Amino acid sequence: MSSSSSSQPKPLRIGIIGFGPFAQFLAKTMMKQGHFIRVTSRSDYSELCANLGILFFRDIGAFLESDNEVIMISTSILSLSRVVEPIPFNCLKRPTLFVDVLSVKEHPKDVLLRIMPEECDLLCTHPMFGPESGKDGWANLTFMYDMVRIRDQSLCSSFLHIFSSEGCKMLEMTCEEHDRLAAQSQFLTHTIGRILSEMGVEPTPIDTKGFQKLVQVKESSVKDSFDLFSGLFIYNRFARQQMKNLEVALEKTKEKLQERSKELQDPIISKF
Amino acid sequence: MSSSSSSQPKPLRIGIIGFGPFAQFLAKTMMKQGHFIRVTSRSDYSELCANLGILFFRDIGAFLESDNEVIMISTSILSLSRVVEPIPFNCLKRPTLFVDVLSVKEHPKDVLLRIMPEECDLLCTHPMFGPESGKDGWANLTFMYDMVRIRDQSLCSSFLHIFSSEGCKMLEMTCEEHDRLAAQSQFLTHTIGRILSEMGVEPTPIDTKGFQKLVQVKESSVKDSFDLFSGLFIYNRFARQQMKNLEVALEKTKEKLQERSKELQDPIISKF
Ligand SMILES: NC(=O)c1ccc[n+]([C@@H]2O[C@H](COP(=O)([O-])OP(=O)(O)OC[C@H]3O[C@@H](n4cnc5c(N)ncnc54)[C@H](OP(=O)(O)O)[C@@H]3O)[C@@H](O)[C@H]2O)c1
Ligand SMILES: NC(=O)c1ccc[n+]([C@@H]2O[C@H](COP(=O)([O-])OP(=O)(O)OC[C@H]3O[C@@H](n4cnc5c(N)ncnc54)[C@H](OP(=O)(O)O)[C@@H]3O)[C@@H](O)[C@H]2O)c1
Repeated sequence: MSSSSSSQPKPLRIGIIGFGPFAQFLAKTMMKQGHFIRVTSRSDYSELCANLGILFFRDIGAFLESDNEVIMISTSILSLSRVVEPIPFNCLKRPTLFVDVLSVKEHPKDVLLRIMPEECDLLCTHPMFGPESGKDGWANLTFMYDMVRIRDQSLCSSFLHIFSSEGCKMLEMTCEEHDRLAAQSQFLTHTIGRILSEMGVEPTPIDTKGFQKLVQVKESSVKDSFDLFSGLFIYNRFARQQMKNLEVALEKTKEKLQERSKELQDPIISKF
Repeated sequence: MSSSSSSQPKPLRIGIIGFGPFAQFLAKTMMKQGHFIRVTSRSDYSELCANLGILFFRDIGAFLESDNEVIMISTSILSLSRVVEPIPFNCLKRPTLFVDVLSVKEHPKDVLLRIMPEECDLLCTHPMFGPESGKDGWANLTFMYDMVRIRDQSLCSSFLHIFSSEGCKMLEMTCEEHDRLAAQSQFLTHTIGRILSEMGVEPTPIDTKGFQKLVQVKESSVKDSFDLFSGLFIYNRFARQQMKNLEVALEKTKEKLQERSKELQDPIISKF
């Protein structure tokens, strides 16, 4: 579709570990750009992959031997350690660029730095969009990345070009800074979405525009898995504080209303 | 601007009690449609009114004597009783249509039915929009109304036509049904907006689309007065329950996260 596809320097061989909704969404654009995709995952995606023209490997060893330049990790946050710790890295044919796309960043950085072979590079990323918000293209959507350990600059640039050429806002930031900000924004948004869903919030005939926005927040939060939401909480060390801030703010808001309510009943304080 | 202005049958003489931000916003469109507006309010708006070509009355008696067909009440919810109870209704020159636009509906209905002269009609309404959401016109925005005591159908229709001719979705509903639904939608939205403001929520460089919606909800909630917010809480009998539901849902969401967190630490339960 976009003219940018043709400006892509050369097709990359990209292996993907974890072929859930988000990886499938990313793979579509990568294939459109001409990259070669190979996949391995816990579940059997051989039929889906055959339909998409993608090689699927049940066996992680064979997957590693298939000689990828880039290996992109897109497992759930909760399963990362369990998925990557048993990887037989000795099957790798070359120094590989590992990229993760998890919605928390310090955790995969720590785990991958610990277990990856020294000769492999690591790029930690977080595309700040998903199948819903990115369904009409990626232009102006933010792509956060941290070049944690990059020696092959050219390979790293080629990978980043996948996103920049689609018009993403490319934002370099440390994993720590990401987690601090994401707790205040994305985690809070998911939490409010889940709370609204817990309340059974539904459109009414007298919706205000503001309420319609809340209904949208609820709907898009529950489209993501509960694993994703719990991952944001458990593996972002700033999330717990944010949850506390939310509770305190709710309590304060209630108190202000009760104070106002009491003032109105007291004819001496009340100016009404 | 709109061709509908010309289809307005005849200009109405509309008196407004309470000339705060919302009444000023409504008056603009009413004047554009050719209606004659007179105003009285606690504060002195004589200069503003002079600039707009509107008659301003400091004295409520003189205001009532100025012979309005419709009197629209747009005081804050909290001040309604204090404002309307001392009205010298005996100054009225004719059976008048009283209209209120308060964001709660059972309360003004009860107060006005109790104090209004028997020969006056009462239309309780809630335009489900404000200066922000209605700044680009009123098309497709909802106008809720309850024809509580209407004998002069034609006068009531003429008033409703102000909104229907601008393209509002006209929605007839009892005051009780309104308050039940508005607690679930509008009050909840204001509450979440105030909580986010209490938390000091601000845009970050890595905002998701969902978070941007929350920031908008926060910004539009704090643009309305705290009196309006407390009015929604104190004078909507369904609001307290909604506040409780919000607290319970927050608690449940937190518990679910903590449960998931514990499961992951327990190697027997954990499937990860
Ligand atoms: N969805 C978004 O909008 C979005 C945006 C940016 C980043 N992300 C990140 O992208 C990653 C994938 O997200 P997602 O939306 O696809 O859903 P998800 O529920 O977070 O992750 C699903 C993936 O995790 C794998 N997985 C889950 N439990 C596993 C286990 N016990 N063992 C092995 N593999 C396991 C699944 O494998 P199978 O499919 O083989 O079962 C699947 O590939 C997450 O880290 C998420 O934070 C998501
Ligand atoms: N803003 C909206 O988007 C919106 C939408 C739909 C309905 N409404 C309803 O419209 C009404 C007006 O809303 P608003 O946005 O203009 O702001 P508000 O803060 O709810 O009300 C302001 C009005 O109340 C009057 N007032 C406040 N305290 C008073 C007192 N102690 N004695 C006498 N008058 C007092 C003010 O008079 P002075 O200005 O003379 O001081 C002003 O006219 C409210 O009932 C609100 O619920 C608002």
